[in-house]
Amino acid sequence: MQTIQSTSYPVHFQETGYDAINEFIAKKGFKTVFILVDENTHEHCLPILQQELEVDVTFEVIEIESGEVNKNLGTCMSIWQALTDLGADRKSLLINIGGGVITDMGGFVASTYKRGIQFINIPTTLLSMVDASVGGKTGVDLGVLKNQIGLFADPEMVLIDSLYLKTLSEKEMTSGMAEIIKYGLTYDKSLWSQFTDPTKNVDIEGMIHRSIEIKNEVVLEDRLEANLRKILNYGHTIGHAVESYFLESEDKTTLTHGEAIALGMITEAYISSKLFNFPLSDLELIKTTITRIFGKVPVSKEDYPAVIDLMKHDKKNVNGQVNFVLLEGIEKYKIDCKVSIDLIKESLDYYLA
Amino acid sequence: MQTIQSTSYPVHFQETGYDAINEFIAKKGFKTVFILVDENTHEHCLPILQQELEVDVTFEVIEIESGEVNKNLGTCMSIWQALTDLGADRKSLLINIGGGVITDMGGFVASTYKRGIQFINIPTTLLSMVDASVGGKTGVDLGVLKNQIGLFADPEMVLIDSLYLKTLSEKEMTSGMAEIIKYGLTYDKSLWSQFTDPTKNVDIEGMIHRSIEIKNEVVLEDRLEANLRKILNYGHTIGHAVESYFLESEDKTTLTHGEAIALGMITEAYISSKLFNFPLSDLELIKTTITRIFGKVPVSKEDYPAVIDLMKHDKKNVNGQVNFVLLEGIEKYKIDCKVSIDLIKESLDYYLA
Repeated sequence: MQTIQSTSYPVHFQETGYDAINEFIAKKGFKTVFILVDENTHEHCLPILQQELEVDVTFEVIEIESGEVNKNLGTCMSIWQALTDLGADRKSLLINIGGGVITDMGGFVASTYKRGIQFINIPTTLLSMVDASVGGKTGVDLGVLKNQIGLFADPEMVLIDSLYLKTLSEKEMTSGMAEIIKYGLTYDKSLWSQFTDPTKNVDIEGMIHRSIEIKNEVVLEDRLEANLRKILNYGHTIGHAVESYFLESEDKTTLTHGEAIALGMITEAYISSKLFNFPLSDLELIKTTITRIFGKVPVSKEDYPAVIDLMKHDKKNVNGQVNFVLLEGIEKYKIDCKVSIDLIKESLDYYLA
Repeated sequence: MQTIQSTSYPVHFQETGYDAINEFIAKKGFKTVFILVDENTHEHCLPILQQELEVDVTFEVIEIESGEVNKNLGTCMSIWQALTDLGADRKSLLINIGGGVITDMGGFVASTYKRGIQFINIPTTLLSMVDASVGGKTGVDLGVLKNQIGLFADPEMVLIDSLYLKTLSEKEMTSGMAEIIKYGLTYDKSLWSQFTDPTKNVDIEGMIHRSIEIKNEVVLEDRLEANLRKILNYGHTIGHAVESYFLESEDKTTLTHGEAIALGMITEAYISSKLFNFPLSDLELIKTTITRIFGKVPVSKEDYPAVIDLMKHDKKNVNGQVNFVLLEGIEKYKIDCKVSIDLIKESLDYYLA
């Protein structure tokens, strides 16, 4: 599949990507290449990568524990320390191979180690492929606040290989679908239409390529999130808050990112119907389609106040005002929308009904 | 004194600076401005700043403990948490008022909080005025490794007011002199000549302005430290290692940065004389002048191995090779010089003799 050129770097697919990495390492003359993995990608993905690498360098593998709960500064400190102990210098290369936790955190660690070393991202989950391949966002969580600490920094390249998806659970595959649906709802009707007919076969590689293409168009247009890029937050204002709330609640299971964003897309479509006459038929189709794929998140009325409180900490807020991306129709987004707390509660009621 | 225009921001002096800050805050419409201080600048410098600020905003003061030992990620986490708790959003402003610990760490915290907020630096020590006002370096230490974590990020502006220097101890004032001497030795004979005659009156404001001007020329020429900027490391290869070593040794006093760099400039001038025929008369003048101002650091032969070991972790190293900036004469620098361990030891012997 065709390479997608992002801000300052390419996103390569399959073999083209391995060729590019081999060439890059050879050309730059790295003596040691550092590879960041978690226990899962260490076992399932690193062997695939190593088989494809045909360069004469030493590889130093740094393994961290998988899971969003480890996406924090404590883990960063252990990676910075490992890089130091292994003698990584300013001209070293870090390859991050894993899901969004690895690529977000690895990008942050690389771009702040000795004021920045080069890094390459190899996302291995559907979610990180379609969400984290372009945009240059790196970061870690601060307590329950997602990506509160981080910066914009570009990798040297990104490699997408759908082979890595074979190591994913069904649940993880589904989780990534939420972002693809988001691209469909906000930007591409025909992508969305691939979800609404349950009898249709899914072309996952095509969907990944198209999703990255869309995100790239959006990011190239608005790298620093002044306008258009905000559409990527559709479903995320309520979704993120619910995800954080479930993560910090002891009596709640942890949600996948997809489950949380699924809830966010339904509730924010409801709000859109109330504020901008988003068609009720589309609203119903969104609810049935998304619920068929994701099921329902066990949120209850008692959870509303805490969830709404968390929204007030959203990074997108300015002057304490929560900002929504809403829809007038499929592909017709409205940014910077103010929504009353009562309407947010009503949308959660609609979700639960 | 005339404003110096750096990469993307101005360095203002005295009143011009306060006018610029007032204008900036008013124009950008900040509602809350966050101010980072330590207990010393809180008491002695913040009142001066507050008297000069004529804007209708709320100020939230975040205080940390002073000292290099607190320039670490633990302190960063407490500042990020304070910003979060105080409701700082992406459009907030952080003013860092203090020495290099405050401006380096405050710059790092600001440029990684919610992927970057705006910040202004007000250096209050001689060292941070002449060393940290331009160049865009931010960072914190990792264990004994100085500035191991950080990134290049520019403030909105820098304000220099020599009034803040009145709150400094004699020792702190002297510490800052080392960097000014470094600018003289590597770049400006006439600046250096102001130190060699002990009967001359010192024009401190002029020296500060000239030092920033020199550093700015160097940085504008070579922001990412590929070539010319390396001259700023004169005296720092050995100096930094000795500084780190004294910091981590329980039975050693902590050195000021100036004392360590003073040692570095003498030893590296000695190495220069051995490798590049740096004139012996200048070498002697450097030794007597710098020793008159800084005294001697109590380093001993037993310390050499540990000091040399620390040099191997210098951020400027590539492929394990320690790189020196040396001199063929005053103003005549040579970058990327390799030096044998024996010669480093010999230079320390010369210093001690």
